[in-house]
Amino acid sequence: MLELTALQTETGTLIDAINYTWILVVSFMIFFMHAGFAMLEAGQVRSKNVSNQLTKNLLTWSVGVTVFFAIGSGVSSLVGGGGWGAAYLSSGTGWIDWLYGAVFAMTAATIVSGAVAGRAKLRAYVTYTFLLAAVIYPVVIGMTWSVAEGVTGPVEMITGVAFTDFAGGMIVHGMGGIAGLTAAAVLGPRIGRYNDDGSSNVIPGHSMTFAVLGTLMLAFGWYGFNVGTSAIFSDGAFLGDQLGRVAMTTTLSMAAGAMGAAGIAWAKTGKVDTLYVANGLLAGLVGITAIPHTTTVWGAALVGVLAGAQLPIVFEFVEKRLKIDDVCAVFPVHGSAGVLGTLLYPFVAVAGWNGLTPDIGFMIEGLFAQAVGVVLIAGWTVLATGVIWYAFKAVGQARVSREHEQEGLDVSEHGVETYPEFGDEGAAVADGGF
Amino acid sequence: MLELTALQTETGTLIDAINYTWILVVSFMIFFMHAGFAMLEAGQVRSKNVSNQLTKNLLTWSVGVTVFFAIGSGVSSLVGGGGWGAAYLSSGTGWIDWLYGAVFAMTAATIVSGAVAGRAKLRAYVTYTFLLAAVIYPVVIGMTWSVAEGVTGPVEMITGVAFTDFAGGMIVHGMGGIAGLTAAAVLGPRIGRYNDDGSSNVIPGHSMTFAVLGTLMLAFGWYGFNVGTSAIFSDGAFLGDQLGRVAMTTTLSMAAGAMGAAGIAWAKTGKVDTLYVANGLLAGLVGITAIPHTTTVWGAALVGVLAGAQLPIVFEFVEKRLKIDDVCAVFPVHGSAGVLGTLLYPFVAVAGWNGLTPDIGFMIEGLFAQAVGVVLIAGWTVLATGVIWYAFKAVGQARVSREHEQEGLDVSEHGVETYPEFGDEGAAVADGGF
Amino acid sequence: MLELTALQTETGTLIDAINYTWILVVSFMIFFMHAGFAMLEAGQVRSKNVSNQLTKNLLTWSVGVTVFFAIGSGVSSLVGGGGWGAAYLSSGTGWIDWLYGAVFAMTAATIVSGAVAGRAKLRAYVTYTFLLAAVIYPVVIGMTWSVAEGVTGPVEMITGVAFTDFAGGMIVHGMGGIAGLTAAAVLGPRIGRYNDDGSSNVIPGHSMTFAVLGTLMLAFGWYGFNVGTSAIFSDGAFLGDQLGRVAMTTTLSMAAGAMGAAGIAWAKTGKVDTLYVANGLLAGLVGITAIPHTTTVWGAALVGVLAGAQLPIVFEFVEKRLKIDDVCAVFPVHGSAGVLGTLLYPFVAVAGWNGLTPDIGFMIEGLFAQAVGVVLIAGWTVLATGVIWYAFKAVGQARVSREHEQEGLDVSEHGVETYPEFGDEGAAVADGGF
Repeated sequence: MLELTALQTETGTLIDAINYTWILVVSFMIFFMHAGFAMLEAGQVRSKNVSNQLTKNLLTWSVGVTVFFAIGSGVSSLVGGGGWGAAYLSSGTGWIDWLYGAVFAMTAATIVSGAVAGRAKLRAYVTYTFLLAAVIYPVVIGMTWSVAEGVTGPVEMITGVAFTDFAGGMIVHGMGGIAGLTAAAVLGPRIGRYNDDGSSNVIPGHSMTFAVLGTLMLAFGWYGFNVGTSAIFSDGAFLGDQLGRVAMTTTLSMAAGAMGAAGIAWAKTGKVDTLYVANGLLAGLVGITAIPHTTTVWGAALVGVLAGAQLPIVFEFVEKRLKIDDVCAVFPVHGSAGVLGTLLYPFVAVAGWNGLTPDIGFMIEGLFAQAVGVVLIAGWTVLATGVIWYAFKAVGQARVSREHEQEGLDVSEHGVETYPEFGDEGAAVADGGF
Repeated sequence: MLELTALQTETGTLIDAINYTWILVVSFMIFFMHAGFAMLEAGQVRSKNVSNQLTKNLLTWSVGVTVFFAIGSGVSSLVGGGGWGAAYLSSGTGWIDWLYGAVFAMTAATIVSGAVAGRAKLRAYVTYTFLLAAVIYPVVIGMTWSVAEGVTGPVEMITGVAFTDFAGGMIVHGMGGIAGLTAAAVLGPRIGRYNDDGSSNVIPGHSMTFAVLGTLMLAFGWYGFNVGTSAIFSDGAFLGDQLGRVAMTTTLSMAAGAMGAAGIAWAKTGKVDTLYVANGLLAGLVGITAIPHTTTVWGAALVGVLAGAQLPIVFEFVEKRLKIDDVCAVFPVHGSAGVLGTLLYPFVAVAGWNGLTPDIGFMIEGLFAQAVGVVLIAGWTVLATGVIWYAFKAVGQARVSREHEQEGLDVSEHGVETYPEFGDEGAAVADGGF
Repeated sequence: MLELTALQTETGTLIDAINYTWILVVSFMIFFMHAGFAMLEAGQVRSKNVSNQLTKNLLTWSVGVTVFFAIGSGVSSLVGGGGWGAAYLSSGTGWIDWLYGAVFAMTAATIVSGAVAGRAKLRAYVTYTFLLAAVIYPVVIGMTWSVAEGVTGPVEMITGVAFTDFAGGMIVHGMGGIAGLTAAAVLGPRIGRYNDDGSSNVIPGHSMTFAVLGTLMLAFGWYGFNVGTSAIFSDGAFLGDQLGRVAMTTTLSMAAGAMGAAGIAWAKTGKVDTLYVANGLLAGLVGITAIPHTTTVWGAALVGVLAGAQLPIVFEFVEKRLKIDDVCAVFPVHGSAGVLGTLLYPFVAVAGWNGLTPDIGFMIEGLFAQAVGVVLIAGWTVLATGVIWYAFKAVGQARVSREHEQEGLDVSEHGVETYPEFGDEGAAVADGGF
């Protein structure tokens, strides 16, 4: 029977190898979302601020991943009740698991840069990213994904039901979108964004092509994000059912998000605004990200349509009512869409999944648990982000000077021009700089 | 012997898991080709029509994939003799299979937008995409890939030999290229493309960089398209021979396509036109896509060279003889190259593959079957596409107005400017356009 | 026992299948680095030379991969002592192995085009690429990676210790960077790069956005390059320890490279130059590429910081002392960073890895072996590259004419304009064209 035992061991090793190969591939794809964010955000800012946006993106990854390695990974396990488990103490496949967690963490971090574009000081932004990677995001996952075995997480402690967020619809995207909105609110709008009478001006991005390129790169990486959150095997069983459902709901919700936003834009203006379609596609992806493994076919389409349709409405609300200058629309795309999908969980869940009975009792219970989770994450994120940016503001380090903002952050912060052969920057500065 | 049975079951599950992991990864790569098409096409249109092209791309995916889910997948199995098998009736790994089919379907769909660029109405294009995803493409695969077990497909019924198209050289690319040519013919050329004397003007695209970026993104995704059409295991056997051959022929034909087009361009003008090299590389890929699993080393190089070399010639024929304004050269790249490779099948097949004897009898028989398949697919595509676009034209819904075309479709259909800070939009700034 | 044997065979086949699936996926990712190089280089050249750079990139791949298939793969095994083993003699999974080798080879080849941008003749460049793929790079790997079983490689013959270069930090990147520097030195600088008094002018690239896009695409592909150099299984054992370490060191060194370059740039100018951050990130990746499997956590950070920090310094040295016009900074990014990481091997190696004792004896011995390998590879590369480009120069075929250089290579070599709707090319040409 020796050989039989050996073969059984081998089956376990094969399963490990398949799982880790998959984790590596999807981690690379999720890392690639950084390139997508860089393009999406670069496309949505003025040409005088493009290099600033690109540099922030590069430094978000570089600083953030290092800090998450040295500090954040330890904080998350500490908050989760498992003691200090920083990644430098790990080894072998533990580092694959760390990288997998790190690409999610950096997605949350990079979302913020889109909200504060065009006026935040580089050093303030990088310091905030340090704190986000070291503490803010680790606390969020310490309350949810990183709760240690045998420990009861805060949502379950309060409601008796665990918080459901499969791939980070709230934990990653909702958190990032809310952090971005908070930081943008504290920073104040770009010069020229609002008139004295409170009316607003549109400051269009410099390249729709880069914005849409970024959108499609993100959508590619998102398959890694959502489908890749499922292992291939769990407890020796092939998770084909889960993988298939996640692939299906992610696809349908993405598609419905684009159509939902396109429909609202068309209904309001008679035209199909390209950026709404692109951001609607992303909002559809965000919307399903918390619940792709439990949602029905028609539920996925519904989540997508709603996530897409709320985009133009929430964007206008933020712009015109809240008067917050969220440059790349990160709140409607990541924040409100993430919250929406998270809360819809019990209403669109497939019957029988994990013993679910989608009755009214489940809906009330599930909604309560999800709402508590949303409130906890949002509350902590607003608090931590607000305190930090108010502190920067208090010491005059939050925003660049008025002159530097008008001149553009590329020159003042980086000493470069993004397109030295194009555009007539001279005139642009003369007429008010936007 | 209980344990032995258990282990045997596990081997089957491991094989399933490996196959599905591979299908997921290549499906993501093929999805990424959408980003490639978006960039390739955006680069080849005028800056006033870029956002229109990008929006079409986003909506092709969003509308198309939803329609293919709800209708097209059912039509294809119905036509194939297997009854209504729409994807919403599926589950688990069936949805992985659906996504895998859907990314091929959407490749066919998106090719068309490159041909009708710069003058097709958005609503006409989207309606056509709906019909392509619901009926036109599903009928094509219902006649070929989706023929049900035990049913004899039309090519085999007519010729006694099955139609060979491994990864969609004809079924996907040939079909898309022919559909694009048909739609462009019905639509008529862009204003200014032809002079009164019948001579033609070149209307260059706005960015070679985006066009080449798109080319290389497509080439990356194409490895998923071709190599990914092979499973890793079939009937318990590792398909290493097939995977290796497909990887090799795809690479060589791509390379030869670029060199073939470069050579012809250089011979004709003494210069190496960048866009011919890029499109030649793609034509080389299209050329081999029907037959990468059966083609010899030297056959792959030959297919690539011919597919690349025919590109400048067919492009000129379409432009100057047929006087069809195929903006992004989708017919020479996808249509004629796809037909060429499909027909070359029996002449470049490796001896002994699947019991093949590459003698004259096989060549005649094989060519006949391939030709019948090409005629069936091309005939149906031209008919269906022609009827639809003539119908749009008859009710005045095919083309935008002359004014809108001259102004650019970005403003008239989408209300946006792609590059508000560049080009000579001086007027736009003056009227408050920020 | 028949069934047991069958099952054992199956385990071996499953392991093969997993390894080859991984090799395919990472090969596709490494191929995608071509798109990254195309964008990185295109962004760093003037708009009048962009299409030239893109065409070179397309032809590097197309010509190079064909030549490596037909000749180079044979030369490498011949030099390695294994006889003529050209890829056309191979089959099945042998072609997967070939493709895997080819994407590494083409990385080395494409690096050169960044150094000679803006003045090398297309035909000279393509001829050089032919020779690089046929002989120069094959000789390098024939001395290292392709040493046949039972044969002692030159470094081991000289020093008694084998040369360590895991994924090509020296063999691919170092070699490419040194070849680029050599070719640029022979070619001479672009017109206007240096003044009569020996001082230099900055000729900025035309698009930071494309440069950073290329950087992030490269970083994505690099995970395939480094992590993908490890198999999943070796001798039946899952290499999870190695995969995890490589993923970790690659990530940390990349991040540290960006921060190192940013820090030096900031210390020198008070600003954080975007291009230094991007190129620093790449230098961090190059630095670790030779040794990701043996380096400690803190070693990886150190290698990255040093590789990033040396970038601005070496770039200035090349520009101001050597007065070599290395347009895309390929020497500081790929050459010196590759050499640095290769030499650091014994100082940052983890204790116990492969029986390593990181004592002083190991450091001296290891450094000597690494230095001998670097000298061999660098010496051969400089010699071969220098002879070829001097020969081109001797027959007047190395550089385009002064007029063509001022007009831009896009028009003179390719007959195209990259951005026909943008920029004021007229004026640019009038003032000397840069």
